[in-house]
Amino acid sequence: MRSVAALLLLLLCASVATACSGDRDPNPNAKPLPPSSYVLPERIVQQIRDHQDDANRIIDYFTKGPGQGQTYTRLASLVDTVGPRPSGSASLERAIDMMLGNLKADRLDNVHGEPAWIPHWVRGAEYVQLLEPHDFTMNILSLGSSVGTGPQGITAEAIVVSSFEELTNRSAEAKGKIVVFNQPFVSYGETSVYRTQGASAAAKVGGVASLIRTIAPFSIYSPHTGVQFYTDGIPKIPTACITIEDAEMMARMHARGQRIVLKVYLEAQNLNDTLSRNTVAEVVGSTHPEQVVLVSGHLDSWDIAEAAMDDAGGAIISWQALSVVKALGLKPKRTMRALLWTSEEFGGVGSQQYYNSQANNTGNYSIVMESDLGTFTPTGLEFTGSPAATAIIQQIGQLLVNANATVVDCSLTFRHLLFCSLSGVPGASLHNDNDDYFYFHHSRGDTMTVEDPVALDLCAAVWAVYAYVIADLDDMLPR
Amino acid sequence: MRSVAALLLLLLCASVATACSGDRDPNPNAKPLPPSSYVLPERIVQQIRDHQDDANRIIDYFTKGPGQGQTYTRLASLVDTVGPRPSGSASLERAIDMMLGNLKADRLDNVHGEPAWIPHWVRGAEYVQLLEPHDFTMNILSLGSSVGTGPQGITAEAIVVSSFEELTNRSAEAKGKIVVFNQPFVSYGETSVYRTQGASAAAKVGGVASLIRTIAPFSIYSPHTGVQFYTDGIPKIPTACITIEDAEMMARMHARGQRIVLKVYLEAQNLNDTLSRNTVAEVVGSTHPEQVVLVSGHLDSWDIAEAAMDDAGGAIISWQALSVVKALGLKPKRTMRALLWTSEEFGGVGSQQYYNSQANNTGNYSIVMESDLGTFTPTGLEFTGSPAATAIIQQIGQLLVNANATVVDCSLTFRHLLFCSLSGVPGASLHNDNDDYFYFHHSRGDTMTVEDPVALDLCAAVWAVYAYVIADLDDMLPR
Repeated sequence: MRSVAALLLLLLCASVATACSGDRDPNPNAKPLPPSSYVLPERIVQQIRDHQDDANRIIDYFTKGPGQGQTYTRLASLVDTVGPRPSGSASLERAIDMMLGNLKADRLDNVHGEPAWIPHWVRGAEYVQLLEPHDFTMNILSLGSSVGTGPQGITAEAIVVSSFEELTNRSAEAKGKIVVFNQPFVSYGETSVYRTQGASAAAKVGGVASLIRTIAPFSIYSPHTGVQFYTDGIPKIPTACITIEDAEMMARMHARGQRIVLKVYLEAQNLNDTLSRNTVAEVVGSTHPEQVVLVSGHLDSWDIAEAAMDDAGGAIISWQALSVVKALGLKPKRTMRALLWTSEEFGGVGSQQYYNSQANNTGNYSIVMESDLGTFTPTGLEFTGSPAATAIIQQIGQLLVNANATVVDCSLTFRHLLFCSLSGVPGASLHNDNDDYFYFHHSRGDTMTVEDPVALDLCAAVWAVYAYVIADLDDMLPR
Repeated sequence: MRSVAALLLLLLCASVATACSGDRDPNPNAKPLPPSSYVLPERIVQQIRDHQDDANRIIDYFTKGPGQGQTYTRLASLVDTVGPRPSGSASLERAIDMMLGNLKADRLDNVHGEPAWIPHWVRGAEYVQLLEPHDFTMNILSLGSSVGTGPQGITAEAIVVSSFEELTNRSAEAKGKIVVFNQPFVSYGETSVYRTQGASAAAKVGGVASLIRTIAPFSIYSPHTGVQFYTDGIPKIPTACITIEDAEMMARMHARGQRIVLKVYLEAQNLNDTLSRNTVAEVVGSTHPEQVVLVSGHLDSWDIAEAAMDDAGGAIISWQALSVVKALGLKPKRTMRALLWTSEEFGGVGSQQYYNSQANNTGNYSIVMESDLGTFTPTGLEFTGSPAATAIIQQIGQLLVNANATVVDCSLTFRHLLFCSLSGVPGASLHNDNDDYFYFHHSRGDTMTVEDPVALDLCAAVWAVYAYVIADLDDMLPR
């Protein structure tokens, strides 16, 4: 099942590259949309305004009530106790078990895991040794799905290029070499193609391994991992990311005419798929229980950090959005469902299998919300949907004036592309002050140190207000 | 000889802690001093003004002449080719040999190495494994002069404290434990005492190893090494720095009541001292060859990075200060001497031996200049000296209006404490925009990536103008 789904995903990747890469670029310049030309019926405006008291209760719960500091505490407790949660690992399943317990303890409805087969790639020991012009061991991180080098490693001369185009122009030089990509960082969306496609591009011209400059705007010698995809019909060669610093160093050596000799040693292995679970909890709707407002984040992570930011934070605020509604005794008309995805990092594997199970039921989804771009100070919502739906989201944003989170930014590219692009379900992401997101993303620096208790309180409040009010409107969001 | 000198240095450390630690905190708020109340004789003012043409030639040489981009190129060529240059290593001697060749190629005078015995500490393999509450391998860096753990490593429960005071209050709990210091970062000068003294403080209360939170204001999971000193009469226990992230994680676990079990494995060893060299070159004075203006930086570094910032940059601009004077055919009245120190990182070991050789000759030193706080965009000079000398330095700064580097900041604490504090020789350091210095200092992130060609051109120009003009005044700087 998964291989067909993976193929479908890969095809979609070609047109929507950023969706597959798991994250998009922050959009720090987003401003509140001007008032929509779409005029909402007064009935709907009033319905939304009537939720101001509920919105205030939610905000107060998190900023000065029993929920104050709780989001940080819950997040830290999970990630500190379980640690990294890579796809296929026992620690991911431990995190899922812990979360099922947490969701039940909050007396949420229909708490359960839904089976999903997921990739199991393991890193093992790994290093790149510079042998000439001097002896130096680099910090590296193999890329997800990379094959290993075998026990002898690969020792070869390096060629350094700054683009795919340069590699093509110099393809005659690449045969038998280790191809080092020192592409400049433009944006995550644009530059991450070197990480996802660099190995096959190098193999195509006879390269024996590829090393990719980390996809990040700033570094303190920090390699960042991430998934990569081999192209069918091209030999699979080992691939890892190196730091910006080492990529630039080798580019200087290369320009200077210095011979660069490297030994690459990766124990990376692709093991058999394992059975995991998407974690589900609900607050069942009082009027339309079959209709769903979905809030989500992913529980899996890369294997190198406790990954508070990518994306335990998104998972925890999705939990909190339901918890506060339950704690305050609110009764939304339709069902609020939290989905804590498994194996997002290997290409949305868990969410894809969930979509497959719901493909005939997408008409019952009012909105699919996902937080996977940080839980820094929230500013509002990124949204994709019709003008009518956008006008509703903007009006709901007015309930969040006190939380300073009224921005509605419609630049959202599809995250849950299967839901949004194939079925036209409106989609949303948490808009937050995530300018530094790619400093930490997929690096060992993705830890609780980047999280702030006050910001997390606000994130939980904003996420909950949007989800609850959308769930409690008389009608689904218009398509 | 060295042990007596080391003892002297250690005693001085007690009163001038920042000097021994090798670097001071940046002072980004420094502003030009107000006009000194000390009135310089018109004769001296005129002498200095008469050097405006020379100053302009030096600035032009580096910013639009043959020296443009050269400082960056020379710096990169050295550090990329040699790599890290730790005290006692073959690569440090290789760097010294390269530099002797470079200095001779520029036809500088009296190019030679002066013997100095230096420590030889080696890192070897090292790791800290979190065993409970989850399995996780931390990035660490053993601290310079630390002993190793032996082949079995040390496995024990951890105690986490945030200060020496807390350790004292909880000393009964520390016996047999690994002591983790999670002290907050206040400033490098204030906080680095945890790195330099943490091991002995832990051993004193029965700790079996100590792990020190990295001394830095910001981190992307970046451990920073540095020297540490064992206190006589207290058992020597292994010690390493850990990242801010892991220190905070363990503090949270400890506060939560979670049991923390660690395995510390360090192969660090202190080997026999080795014979190294301080690297010397001169432009011999035309009138007073026995009188010296000394410009300096250190060639050694920690073993983990090419260390462009700490301190190859300072060494290279000291070379450049002499090179430009030679290239332009300038003939300063007294000798300009460049000193590229060996083994600064273990407590100014090389400079101390140089001082010992000059202790009876300090009356012939007009000024001792050292650049060891970064070579970012220069803003002027940090200075320590008499009011009369300060007024002269301020007047020379006026020659640098075009280089936007007229700041004279008198907050300089003693760097070459033996020259300055014991013998009253005026001292100076390059004032530069080094706000982010401690992001990279003693970390693997200290690379050419933090250096900028245009900033380096200006650094060389500013360093050269001050040194040359001081060397060419009719008189030595007044004490």
